Amino acid sequence: MYLQFDGNGALYAQLARALKRAILEAQLKAGTALPATRVLAAELGLSRNTVLTAYEMLCAEHLAVTRIGSGTFVSASMVSRDRLPIKATVPAQTRYAARLRRLPALTLRRVVPRLRYDLHYGEPLVDPPLITAWRRELARAASAGEWGYPPSAGLRVLRLAISEYLARRRGLVCQADDVVVVSGTQQAIALLARVLLDEGAVVAIEDPGYELASRALQAHGARLLPVKVDAAGLRVEELPRGNRVRMVLVSPSHQFPSGAVMSLARRMSLLDYAAQRGCWVIEDDYDGEFRYDGVAIPALRSLDVRERVIYVGSFSKVLFPGLRLGYVVCPSGLRADLIAAKLNDDLGCGSIEQAALAELMQSGAFDRHLRHAAAELRRRRTALLEGLREHCSRHLVVNDSHAGMHMVGWLPDWTSRQVEALAAHAAGHGLGLHPIGPHYRRQPAPQGLLLGYAALSAKQLRAATALLGQCLDEIADRTA
Amino acid sequence: MYLQFDGNGALYAQLARALKRAILEAQLKAGTALPATRVLAAELGLSRNTVLTAYEMLCAEHLAVTRIGSGTFVSASMVSRDRLPIKATVPAQTRYAARLRRLPALTLRRVVPRLRYDLHYGEPLVDPPLITAWRRELARAASAGEWGYPPSAGLRVLRLAISEYLARRRGLVCQADDVVVVSGTQQAIALLARVLLDEGAVVAIEDPGYELASRALQAHGARLLPVKVDAAGLRVEELPRGNRVRMVLVSPSHQFPSGAVMSLARRMSLLDYAAQRGCWVIEDDYDGEFRYDGVAIPALRSLDVRERVIYVGSFSKVLFPGLRLGYVVCPSGLRADLIAAKLNDDLGCGSIEQAALAELMQSGAFDRHLRHAAAELRRRRTALLEGLREHCSRHLVVNDSHAGMHMVGWLPDWTSRQVEALAAHAAGHGLGLHPIGPHYRRQPAPQGLLLGYAALSAKQLRAATALLGQCLDEIADRTA
Repeated sequence: MYLQFDGNGALYAQLARALKRAILEAQLKAGTALPATRVLAAELGLSRNTVLTAYEMLCAEHLAVTRIGSGTFVSASMVSRDRLPIKATVPAQTRYAARLRRLPALTLRRVVPRLRYDLHYGEPLVDPPLITAWRRELARAASAGEWGYPPSAGLRVLRLAISEYLARRRGLVCQADDVVVVSGTQQAIALLARVLLDEGAVVAIEDPGYELASRALQAHGARLLPVKVDAAGLRVEELPRGNRVRMVLVSPSHQFPSGAVMSLARRMSLLDYAAQRGCWVIEDDYDGEFRYDGVAIPALRSLDVRERVIYVGSFSKVLFPGLRLGYVVCPSGLRADLIAAKLNDDLGCGSIEQAALAELMQSGAFDRHLRHAAAELRRRRTALLEGLREHCSRHLVVNDSHAGMHMVGWLPDWTSRQVEALAAHAAGHGLGLHPIGPHYRRQPAPQGLLLGYAALSAKQLRAATALLGQCLDEIADRTA
Repeated sequence: MYLQFDGNGALYAQLARALKRAILEAQLKAGTALPATRVLAAELGLSRNTVLTAYEMLCAEHLAVTRIGSGTFVSASMVSRDRLPIKATVPAQTRYAARLRRLPALTLRRVVPRLRYDLHYGEPLVDPPLITAWRRELARAASAGEWGYPPSAGLRVLRLAISEYLARRRGLVCQADDVVVVSGTQQAIALLARVLLDEGAVVAIEDPGYELASRALQAHGARLLPVKVDAAGLRVEELPRGNRVRMVLVSPSHQFPSGAVMSLARRMSLLDYAAQRGCWVIEDDYDGEFRYDGVAIPALRSLDVRERVIYVGSFSKVLFPGLRLGYVVCPSGLRADLIAAKLNDDLGCGSIEQAALAELMQSGAFDRHLRHAAAELRRRRTALLEGLREHCSRHLVVNDSHAGMHMVGWLPDWTSRQVEALAAHAAGHGLGLHPIGPHYRRQPAPQGLLLGYAALSAKQLRAATALLGQCLDEIADRTA
């Protein structure tokens, strides 16, 4: 008899599992006798006790029975069956799964380790006082007994803190009851897709745009309609005239990835568009908090008196992405659906993190972090701009929208092949570069680089831009 | 001009928002002059600086423009619109939303505050050493820099810890790569529904069964087929013979809510049923960890050599429900779909909690908690059984399956109306009772009480059973 030990844990347990598998796979048929314990022990070089214990485990599982005086037998009720060759591939079981499998490979969020400088966008600024404050709040919330099932809409104390934050910083006045806590922008979009879009519904998205949101919508079965973005944001005038668009997904505060800020005229006409057609606008305000020229642009939702805008906020950028918390401010008529969808999907977000975040916001530590982060981001942004001007201005045209945590350096005369060569060359020198091309659906895409500055110090950014300038020159000369 | 202040934050910000609303709602038309600052300040009893700051905010938002020497005007590009009366109700926007709205009101998880004793099922045992250990691990993980986006399948260190735990305690040998971390049983079922069930697919569920799982399946669009449960678990022989069942949802280790443990014969025939039809079995092992007579029953998945069983585990019962973490062990051919669905739905679970849980499991603190919890649950269970025998045996027939954290006390001769009267009467005496009737789909349902014993001490359970006996007698006498 061939017994395969899996090497996991005590020998008697491994033996019991090996015997069980032999029984299940019909090597040991129902009713047959197991080898005498002495015999098996000798054969396998194990102690007799080990074998006895394994047999007892099989009996406890009813897979075997011991008859006194005659030995241990495979249970007669055990209908053994042949092991089927297991197919590694299973056909897609649903239309949803089929759509998942048709999605192209992810191009984003590729962080290469061991780069000296990575100009990755979307990495937040993490500072020591925030770590200390977050540790403290987590420990406090864990002691305060936030152990039970959370309410699906989120802890009330957190919804209140969010509504106060939105009024104070984003010009968006709402009540705690208007806020639904979710586990981030991605969940917000997935839930809203289920509540607002039947299979086949048309969604207008920004081109270039945020890949992960598009994927969630495509997997859901939406038909995507890419609409161009220029320096004033989504070209609202290019939205189709009829009624077929059910949803428009925009990032008006700081368009991802182009960095455009949507003009007031475009905002008003987008609101008109939605109100006239009864379609929904999802406002993804992923980094609208950070703004470097005077007051922050108020949220699109704050201009919306006709309740067509659903505002989606996230703590991934203002705190850190590993904290999976975000929120939705939605028209009152959709709130119950959204909360029911959240309940069905995961009951609600973790209580301890919610309580900790509420306390972080109420205690003032969150505002202190925002002030510190904004000041530090401003310093880093200046260092990046100066470095680019000094070292890269021969090639790179900077689009600075005075907002967010990244900017775009356009490469007007470059081809995508040159930009790929640049990224590969830079990586070889320890510099991580992220072309904007793959974020476009229309081809040929404009060429440029996303330049994230939140995760590197001013000093690092100066060194990185010098290195970038050198790489630009080398590739330009090589391919000239 | 009527300006409505919202009472939120500084006066200048409130004034700016009130003016903005007046502009948006066309009380102040495009191009018209705002009142002179002195006039408005006097009218509203505010300082002139407050009004000036509010006007500056409007200009920064491009809602107004200041012409030197002549005052401040509503922006000409501002196409003002009438405020529409906002409808509080919005029709369901999708078939999904329509199904959400048709779901009956939730009957479960109703925890009444200020009860002296609540025999609620599903409340875990929370002990001080666990709180201390969890605080420590959270703080450690927060300092260790788990700040980035998590991998969608879960942190590898946690998936490894879970696979080791499953081999050690649940007889289920799998690799770290077979484990997908999710935010609990609810999310596991929602994700699996999307990956495995098209709208209209038939799912066999246990009757009585777990309400929240059924709701998620119904909302997804599945057609539910309730199948009776007896003392040996789901009556597999009552599953329909054809091929129309796509999924069977079972809790074989400790059926919820009846407490039945599925017999080996039923397990084998369920596996045959699934293999012959290519349908999927979801094993919900919500509290299979706790077992009071010898070894734990191994998971159904551990008997499955033909890869039809998807195992769903949760930390809600072994740790606490506010920790929204669970896991799925699924056939290799479905793994990529499940991870892609998780990515689309919420990117992944929070990194800090995952790292903290992995360390809790690897450090031995988790096993210590399980040992302590099992010993304490055993004590509480004994106290409950003794109390029921002493005070309630005139009415209550106890179904003790030696497992889990609750048992069922059947009331064979009672009507649902009597049980309702009993629950109301007991609540009046500070005792929380939870009838099993509402968990049944077939009517008339058998009558009985779910008796959870994890959240009350042995002493409290003795007092609670004395009170229960008194209430039973009173209601029985009153309605005799």
